Amino acid sequence: MPELDVKQKVLAANQAAAAALRRTFRDQRTLVVNLISSPGSGKTTLLEATVARMKDRYRLGGLDGDIATERDADRLRKAGIPARQILTGGACHLDARQVDTALAEEGETLRGLDILFIENVGNLICPTSYDLGEDFKVVLLSTAEGDDKPFKYPAIFARSKVAVLTKVDLLPHVDFDVAAVRAQVATLNPGARFVELSARTGEGMEAWCALLAEELREKRSKAV
Amino acid sequence: MPELDVKQKVLAANQAAAAALRRTFRDQRTLVVNLISSPGSGKTTLLEATVARMKDRYRLGGLDGDIATERDADRLRKAGIPARQILTGGACHLDARQVDTALAEEGETLRGLDILFIENVGNLICPTSYDLGEDFKVVLLSTAEGDDKPFKYPAIFARSKVAVLTKVDLLPHVDFDVAAVRAQVATLNPGARFVELSARTGEGMEAWCALLAEELREKRSKAV
Repeated sequence: MPELDVKQKVLAANQAAAAALRRTFRDQRTLVVNLISSPGSGKTTLLEATVARMKDRYRLGGLDGDIATERDADRLRKAGIPARQILTGGACHLDARQVDTALAEEGETLRGLDILFIENVGNLICPTSYDLGEDFKVVLLSTAEGDDKPFKYPAIFARSKVAVLTKVDLLPHVDFDVAAVRAQVATLNPGARFVELSARTGEGMEAWCALLAEELREKRSKAV
Repeated sequence: MPELDVKQKVLAANQAAAAALRRTFRDQRTLVVNLISSPGSGKTTLLEATVARMKDRYRLGGLDGDIATERDADRLRKAGIPARQILTGGACHLDARQVDTALAEEGETLRGLDILFIENVGNLICPTSYDLGEDFKVVLLSTAEGDDKPFKYPAIFARSKVAVLTKVDLLPHVDFDVAAVRAQVATLNPGARFVELSARTGEGMEAWCALLAEELREKRSKAV
């Protein structure tokens, strides 16, 4: 099976690059969060709202993966933090080498941050297998996407430390059973944190930002 | 570049299988529509509403690609048409061999249909390159996903004969510029048809069903 061999080799090379990144992030005492969701679940909008709440107290930065356009990194820069777009040239996920190259090319602005947000390519499947040296993955699901998604895309929900339900302001206008989604996530990943929020109205944003601050404190308390 | 070689070989093998499927569908006078979108854009909900409007006059059937669960094929069967689930074993798209195998295993119920709907795995990227022997691709985008998506995922919009904007009933509750999306689609694919609809309220469903009926007539008028 030559196709499988190649996939194994690609993943092994990625793992080595991710391990090196993880050492770098540990030395720089930076918390790294890898955000994964379908296109349009609201990753960039959540980050804009997060930046507005946290940028005065924390040094934040972003890496934005996309097939095409510089739009997401532009939005984060407008929100007031350094950000760099990674164009994947058609690939359906970021890999650790791309992250390493982007950080090297960007230089000082993304070094020694408190929190680095990596916004992956919009895709619930491909990014799951590619470690980027992050502290943890966050999977986002919007209330407009239907309440059957965790069981339909189980791997990413099983591997994400945090599941964020976005766009809860739309709940009155869609058929969506929040309890059913909570139950699916709990089945796939009993230790996962579950956050419900709307970046548009601000509901739930405080809990999300508190979670990030707590994870940063915890990482730094371990890295003595 | 062994990785690229393998990809080329996989795509060439898929193209051969797709060509054979296309001959079969031509002989059976079946219109085949390959529906592609992010998870949660409303492919299955659109098909349920389409079936309710068309099943009395047309022989319809469905193939549903997913990573996990039989849920989508179940929903189409409950809507009243034969349907078969294809579980891709983690792969982020359907391929022509999977379609061929599923049709062979299903036997009579999906043979000689008027229209066969193939609901691809929820993913705006990977399914783009895999021809399934379809007459045309339909890309779906929901009003909850943001109005920047065609330029961010250009390949699938460039290759789809029809772009469907779903969930227009949510327009009063989201920030979404329909004209901007129309303009992006027209830039990427000047010949594309653009349909706006809500499967939930029924708005736009008549135009969508008329388009399918017209495509079926046109295919059959050519295949003399």
